[in-house]
Amino acid sequence: MTTKIGILGYGNLGRGVEKAVLKNSDIELKAIFTRRNPKDLKVNSSAQVCSVDDIENWKDKIDVLIICGGSATDLPVQTPKYAKLFNVVDSFDTHANIPQHFSAVDEIAKSSKKIGIISVGWDPGMFSLNRLYANCILPDGKDYTFWGKGVSQGHSDAIRRIDGVLDARQYTIPVNEALEAVRSGKNPELSTRQKHTRECFVVLKEGADAKKVEQEIVTMPNYFADYDTTVHFISKEELDKNHSAIPHGGFVLRCGETSDNTKHLIEYSLKLDSNPEFTSSVLIAYARAAHRLNKEGQCGCKTVFDIAPAYLSPKSNQELISTML
Amino acid sequence: MTTKIGILGYGNLGRGVEKAVLKNSDIELKAIFTRRNPKDLKVNSSAQVCSVDDIENWKDKIDVLIICGGSATDLPVQTPKYAKLFNVVDSFDTHANIPQHFSAVDEIAKSSKKIGIISVGWDPGMFSLNRLYANCILPDGKDYTFWGKGVSQGHSDAIRRIDGVLDARQYTIPVNEALEAVRSGKNPELSTRQKHTRECFVVLKEGADAKKVEQEIVTMPNYFADYDTTVHFISKEELDKNHSAIPHGGFVLRCGETSDNTKHLIEYSLKLDSNPEFTSSVLIAYARAAHRLNKEGQCGCKTVFDIAPAYLSPKSNQELISTML
Repeated sequence: MTTKIGILGYGNLGRGVEKAVLKNSDIELKAIFTRRNPKDLKVNSSAQVCSVDDIENWKDKIDVLIICGGSATDLPVQTPKYAKLFNVVDSFDTHANIPQHFSAVDEIAKSSKKIGIISVGWDPGMFSLNRLYANCILPDGKDYTFWGKGVSQGHSDAIRRIDGVLDARQYTIPVNEALEAVRSGKNPELSTRQKHTRECFVVLKEGADAKKVEQEIVTMPNYFADYDTTVHFISKEELDKNHSAIPHGGFVLRCGETSDNTKHLIEYSLKLDSNPEFTSSVLIAYARAAHRLNKEGQCGCKTVFDIAPAYLSPKSNQELISTML
Repeated sequence: MTTKIGILGYGNLGRGVEKAVLKNSDIELKAIFTRRNPKDLKVNSSAQVCSVDDIENWKDKIDVLIICGGSATDLPVQTPKYAKLFNVVDSFDTHANIPQHFSAVDEIAKSSKKIGIISVGWDPGMFSLNRLYANCILPDGKDYTFWGKGVSQGHSDAIRRIDGVLDARQYTIPVNEALEAVRSGKNPELSTRQKHTRECFVVLKEGADAKKVEQEIVTMPNYFADYDTTVHFISKEELDKNHSAIPHGGFVLRCGETSDNTKHLIEYSLKLDSNPEFTSSVLIAYARAAHRLNKEGQCGCKTVFDIAPAYLSPKSNQELISTML
């Protein structure tokens, strides 16, 4: 079965989905929808580029719409809105607001008889799945999530807003000693400072005061004050040359006991050259699932917790059993 | 909802299930069924000990029967047989025969309107799930599975069958350099010898020829000939003191590309103090799922690929979303 998809939004994530399609022979990219003037959009595929205003015309031409907007303002509006017309998949990642987003999408997807899969990616997404599986197997245990090494877009943006800063890139780095303490089965209590450090590469504007900028970064509440933060001042050329990639990753661990002094450690980790390309690849797998579930007559909002793993694969159940079980 | 379970077979696995019940407040162990004389069985719970001949009387008293027999001769008979009467879960792990076992259980479970979940544990089981998820996310990539460090029961048995051997314990050990080559993204081709080594602790019978026994071990086809094998001769006291535990574990890795030179590594690993206790804990989670699926009217044979993760948890979907997503 082929799944025909559309992409809404052509930023890092949208371009990632466009690339991921090339690795999945059963997925066909039909259209890219944009709020910009379609003529101004240079895309890397033969997909039709359309104004989002014309999206309703595609109602019967695509099986799933992958919504590649941001979680702050785009997705809370777009995902419910387009669940009226399409099966939709998004990567909504504002953890605290997921219940509200779920309800909004669920109500509309149920009335339109479509599937909406929200919060797909790696965290939320694959990390969530691993937390869930590990908790079900080891109910008596303790969870740990570490992020990095990777670029935090939010923290990079926060530095860029400081007076005197031209550009910046921030890396979140897990503390190896903390990771090893968890792996050793000690079930440590770890403070924010003990789990991650932050490393910043900053390009100053001409005449800016480096000491002052550094002070403003390391004392910034919520973003940096609770962490050991290192600041490096570099040239714009150096930033562009060595820090233009968007790597990320992290670790989900659970250590638990099944009886006295009988411990078990479950560890899942990701090391990603490109955060948006990996997230996009997860979105594609769940787009396939959305299409199949809807074909079976299911509707409403789902998360990764609600999807049986076999739905993500283009292979038949028999093939899966004989090659992967 | 409470799930009332029975255990069939009281070996390492059955005792593990008995322990796992204590960590799951929604699971109630009602009965342990044995082929031995029930009076001879000392159990560690208040469950009723019954002869397997009386199992039919329990048809309406338990929700799920966890079948804790061996894959060689017990499960191929028991799982289909008891799927006539109960929802069943087993840990059938003869990979090559899973399709056949699936068909046998499916036919009977469909006619009895029960659920049968087969091949539950960690390999097959959690390792299979991780292979599947990783393959769906990174279709262009390469899989690796490493086992250990852990006790291989089959290899220990093979040594015990050698003339002059009183007792033995064999550890399978992943080769660290091979693991690191995979993690580095090199996608290496690895021979059997390059992936694992084997370490044997052997107690000789009085008068046995150590050199001859060692030679017989390291040249044994299928079991040891293709591996670098180390043999240590120790006393029975030393074996009992230092090698009575049944630890195991391993690694599932997939490295793949989403576009040219953009690589991603997904790694899942387990470090288990007790192989049977961990396997039992997975069985309990899937017993909960079997009960819930059957309550919803589903029937037939399932594997871990067919079960949406949320079914494994006693928590409500809302709770899962707000605590783990």
